[in-house]
Amino acid sequence: MSMDGMKSFKLEAGFMGRYEMLINEVVIPYQEKALHDEIEDAEKSHAIENFRIAAQLLETGKTDKNFYGMVFQDSDVGKWLEAAAYSLYKNPNEELEKRCDAVIDLIGRAQHKDGYLNTYFTVKEPDKRWTNLEEAHELYCAGHLIEGAVAYAQCTGKDKFLKIMCRMADHIYDRFIGKGEEGYPGHPEIELALMKLFHHTQENQYKELAEYFVNVRGVDSDFFIKESEKFPWTVWGNNSKDKEYTQNHMPVRLQTEAVGHAVRAVYLYTGMADVAVETGDETLIQACKTLWENITQKRMYVTGGIGSAYEGEAFTKDYHLPNDTAYAETCASIGLIFFARKMIDLEKNSIYADEMERALYNCVLAGMQLDGTKFFYVNPLEVIPGISGQAKTHMHALPERPKWFACACCPPNVARLLSSIGRYAWSEEGRLVYSHLYLAGTLELKGEIGGSIKVTTEYPYDHQVKYTFLPAEQEMDMTLCIRIPAWSDHTQISLNQKNVECEIKEGYAYIRHCFQAEDELIVTFQMEVKRIYPSAKIASDSGKVAFSRGPLIYCAEGIDHDGDVLGLRIGKNTKWQEIASDELRGIVKIKGDGYRVLDTERLYSDTKPQISPQEVTLIPYYAWGNRGLNQMRVWLPEIE
Amino acid sequence: MSMDGMKSFKLEAGFMGRYEMLINEVVIPYQEKALHDEIEDAEKSHAIENFRIAAQLLETGKTDKNFYGMVFQDSDVGKWLEAAAYSLYKNPNEELEKRCDAVIDLIGRAQHKDGYLNTYFTVKEPDKRWTNLEEAHELYCAGHLIEGAVAYAQCTGKDKFLKIMCRMADHIYDRFIGKGEEGYPGHPEIELALMKLFHHTQENQYKELAEYFVNVRGVDSDFFIKESEKFPWTVWGNNSKDKEYTQNHMPVRLQTEAVGHAVRAVYLYTGMADVAVETGDETLIQACKTLWENITQKRMYVTGGIGSAYEGEAFTKDYHLPNDTAYAETCASIGLIFFARKMIDLEKNSIYADEMERALYNCVLAGMQLDGTKFFYVNPLEVIPGISGQAKTHMHALPERPKWFACACCPPNVARLLSSIGRYAWSEEGRLVYSHLYLAGTLELKGEIGGSIKVTTEYPYDHQVKYTFLPAEQEMDMTLCIRIPAWSDHTQISLNQKNVECEIKEGYAYIRHCFQAEDELIVTFQMEVKRIYPSAKIASDSGKVAFSRGPLIYCAEGIDHDGDVLGLRIGKNTKWQEIASDELRGIVKIKGDGYRVLDTERLYSDTKPQISPQEVTLIPYYAWGNRGLNQMRVWLPEIE
Repeated sequence: MSMDGMKSFKLEAGFMGRYEMLINEVVIPYQEKALHDEIEDAEKSHAIENFRIAAQLLETGKTDKNFYGMVFQDSDVGKWLEAAAYSLYKNPNEELEKRCDAVIDLIGRAQHKDGYLNTYFTVKEPDKRWTNLEEAHELYCAGHLIEGAVAYAQCTGKDKFLKIMCRMADHIYDRFIGKGEEGYPGHPEIELALMKLFHHTQENQYKELAEYFVNVRGVDSDFFIKESEKFPWTVWGNNSKDKEYTQNHMPVRLQTEAVGHAVRAVYLYTGMADVAVETGDETLIQACKTLWENITQKRMYVTGGIGSAYEGEAFTKDYHLPNDTAYAETCASIGLIFFARKMIDLEKNSIYADEMERALYNCVLAGMQLDGTKFFYVNPLEVIPGISGQAKTHMHALPERPKWFACACCPPNVARLLSSIGRYAWSEEGRLVYSHLYLAGTLELKGEIGGSIKVTTEYPYDHQVKYTFLPAEQEMDMTLCIRIPAWSDHTQISLNQKNVECEIKEGYAYIRHCFQAEDELIVTFQMEVKRIYPSAKIASDSGKVAFSRGPLIYCAEGIDHDGDVLGLRIGKNTKWQEIASDELRGIVKIKGDGYRVLDTERLYSDTKPQISPQEVTLIPYYAWGNRGLNQMRVWLPEIE
Repeated sequence: MSMDGMKSFKLEAGFMGRYEMLINEVVIPYQEKALHDEIEDAEKSHAIENFRIAAQLLETGKTDKNFYGMVFQDSDVGKWLEAAAYSLYKNPNEELEKRCDAVIDLIGRAQHKDGYLNTYFTVKEPDKRWTNLEEAHELYCAGHLIEGAVAYAQCTGKDKFLKIMCRMADHIYDRFIGKGEEGYPGHPEIELALMKLFHHTQENQYKELAEYFVNVRGVDSDFFIKESEKFPWTVWGNNSKDKEYTQNHMPVRLQTEAVGHAVRAVYLYTGMADVAVETGDETLIQACKTLWENITQKRMYVTGGIGSAYEGEAFTKDYHLPNDTAYAETCASIGLIFFARKMIDLEKNSIYADEMERALYNCVLAGMQLDGTKFFYVNPLEVIPGISGQAKTHMHALPERPKWFACACCPPNVARLLSSIGRYAWSEEGRLVYSHLYLAGTLELKGEIGGSIKVTTEYPYDHQVKYTFLPAEQEMDMTLCIRIPAWSDHTQISLNQKNVECEIKEGYAYIRHCFQAEDELIVTFQMEVKRIYPSAKIASDSGKVAFSRGPLIYCAEGIDHDGDVLGLRIGKNTKWQEIASDELRGIVKIKGDGYRVLDTERLYSDTKPQISPQEVTLIPYYAWGNRGLNQMRVWLPEIE
């Protein structure tokens, strides 16, 4: 049974460890309530109730209740069970496990005898199975439930849920491979889920099915058009002509630009990369690299957000990165992290973990209120109360996090990512151990090396990461490969306080050594306030700069500047002070002398506006919006 | 018969005179062809054909042809006839007049015996008259045809068209006032048209009907909701719940913010102001002033464009003025000019003519290719080929002018405005003669003063305007009131080369004098390159400046800067050279030493980008897009 890095690394106190605890103590119970419709003033979920209704219908042949919610409402249950599984592994909790088991029982009861499982179709459209792959999310829901089932098996050792989902996967296999019914999903997800199922069960047919969905996509780019002609029914409105939206405009190996719905795109690319890791298919590997490059060098916000437009929740065009109307869906950045993780498996190059870290510490963390009870779906880089969430162009760009969403994909996605973040921190390949993310915790080595490595750090605020070696036997003969982040201009590595010289290859420092018990390897980054300049091709950022410290992108909020950030200007030579603060659950603020443009009475004026000195305080972007309704801005105009 | 300023002022050679000639020689014949569907590769109009079909149906009781086009397709014919009328007055043309008469005959034949006239309803929905005031534009089409009829009567002296439209106006009066059927139009226009009809005919019932539509609007703000419940049919999709879109969210006297569809808004405000002029209703006057202030000080682009969003073609929120996704419809700025003209009638304050001139010389002129054969509907202030017109957020913001539009409201609107622009230049009130716009031409005074005033100028490029007096008798005992534009920091007025001291009141210089034959009064503006600073509250313009010279706003185009304007930066102390050029039908370019930010390979970089000197060339905004597909930018980042 492969643990995929999870079981072998336990987070301990530290920045991400505290997030893991928050997910465990607050987010998972909160989301459990949400799924049971027990949160006041929040959007109704009905997701559990849908399973109950489907079960009743299958068992009694009738029900007087209706399905409610999105066509993909089932997936929220899959994601929550996945998060709960990770949480149970780290924090055994008999009561929670019982409740999870009860939900799993319900899922089992909602499964048809032939393995088919989907409450929307079972309750609402019993005669329409598999007739609207474009819109109806059957394979997407199956994918999320499979992911949940794999996690539940890995973390609790119980296989009931896994067996349920294997039956559904077999049902899908039988249809698409067995019976040879052509098709692929409108919303990719099944591909990466089947690969997870394959990694866990080592059953080749799941890999074969994942490969099928990757390979068939876009070969007949009219597939959804033909489907909608053959079965003229719709969930929201047929969109089959917009082939880019669903990334089926051409076969995946020919795709060179990240287009369409951003979450669909990165879920697809994750599946592609996972298949490529297994098959070594060079054209698929090259497609993954090209798409990665297109996203991260032409279509990504500095926060790691992706998807520039509300319209289609989608990528738009190269260098089109508006700040105030950004979509930058939390789920899309989570998907980017999935994609990055698989690219790391494809090749060890720090570009992948650099962007994985960017998306994680900025866009994804911003998706959740610091107390774990409210969530952003959309993560703009500029917020102006009165416009954001209010102008027709900005209805999606809410200035404050709501409690829940009718379309609740993001909150449980954050929960499952943060409660399994250890999986993204390490790779082990024989005697090579790669450290991608600097998370406090202990890694138990699985392979031939033996022993464990304890990481101590207050990263991302502290610039030092300490690796302590705890051999199982006498020593650990290995190469520790530490990512050197692109933002650290000078990185020092010492072993027991002596400088270590080592080879740097593709952004990783390779330290070959026979580590002894209690050996301490300390990595010291140059973690200073940095000014980030945008490509001149990004129109929205012309003349502006952003700030970072370590992996964190900073922003200005109104509350620190008399309510107004639009008038702030940054001097070219500002010196920045770093101030550790207990506010916002502990941050390092940065402060410097900037300017404020005093506003004129007129909309346009030929009188040069007065500029006065103004202390500028920046906080990490992930912590914005935790102090009430507020202006916020990441990119600030730079003046002399 | 009131000529409303038209007959009394004849444009002569000069900037606007040349536009008038272009409209006469190119635009009106071109648009005549478009309305007859004779332009290759252009969107079909079918507007004349619709009248032919309606006439056939009424005369024979049957037709095998269908209505085609927008529900308001009739209005294009009204606007074109209006433009043609103005053109015929200035440039008699027997052939054109015959063809106009033929179209008018056709309109007459398409009129029902009861006066009702609308080809959409006659041909397509004969049983649905007056059952969808929200969407179906019956009153809007009637309004445009009334405007055309009044112009045709004024300019040709023929009253057939006027009589047709009086019968339709009487039909409307009979329904809404006579029978007391409550209602008001989804798209205002009838109000201002009825006031024109009243001014021309002096028939009180038309004023009464205009007042009715102004007064009833929004009193029952559920009117359209109730209408759609009572008559559940739709043209595009019922939108009755969006009350701001149609400005019926509250009674007009209570409205303080310009909201909803921008063209509807300014057409309504024009009607309100016209009614207010006639009635002196203080609350209505105050509402007009408040709405004017809201538009021009919080919701208007520096080009005089209004309507920040494609969504609803609408105003959004205060200070929300995105440059690249601007809607800034040509028709909306034309409507702003209508509104300004009526505000001038309400009170003599230069703020109205200042903004009228801004909208005219910038946004409206930009709406038409310099050769008069292509048109913009949308007038963005920043264009990036590859994004503009291509990204889903920018489909409306075309980077080049198309030949015609399926919704062709703008092209004939430009034509009718520019061919009657003399009406906007002057006001006569007893012995006070106001000069609002500086157009070369000759004004024949109507009232007791006697004589005429000849204006000679190459304004807006020349900074001097010469008024020569030609008394009918010995002298002209009068006060010439000349607007002093806000952009002229120092304005000199001389009479026969001697400085004139005069009172300045609300932006007008009052020159009381008994002018003798050949007296020359010369106004000399300080017309220099000016840097315009945006309110700090406009997020999109933070850190940027725009440039103007006289009333013209300038922009940078890619063709003058190796294809790229996004990397341009402006120094704080640039000296600008003014260069008269024959290019683009004669402009004054401005050139100065600026900078170019050299682009980095990376999307984001912590390396300060190199900056190199770059000569910056700016051209008037109205002339952009006349040299091929091209980047364009009005607001440019200012650096040291």
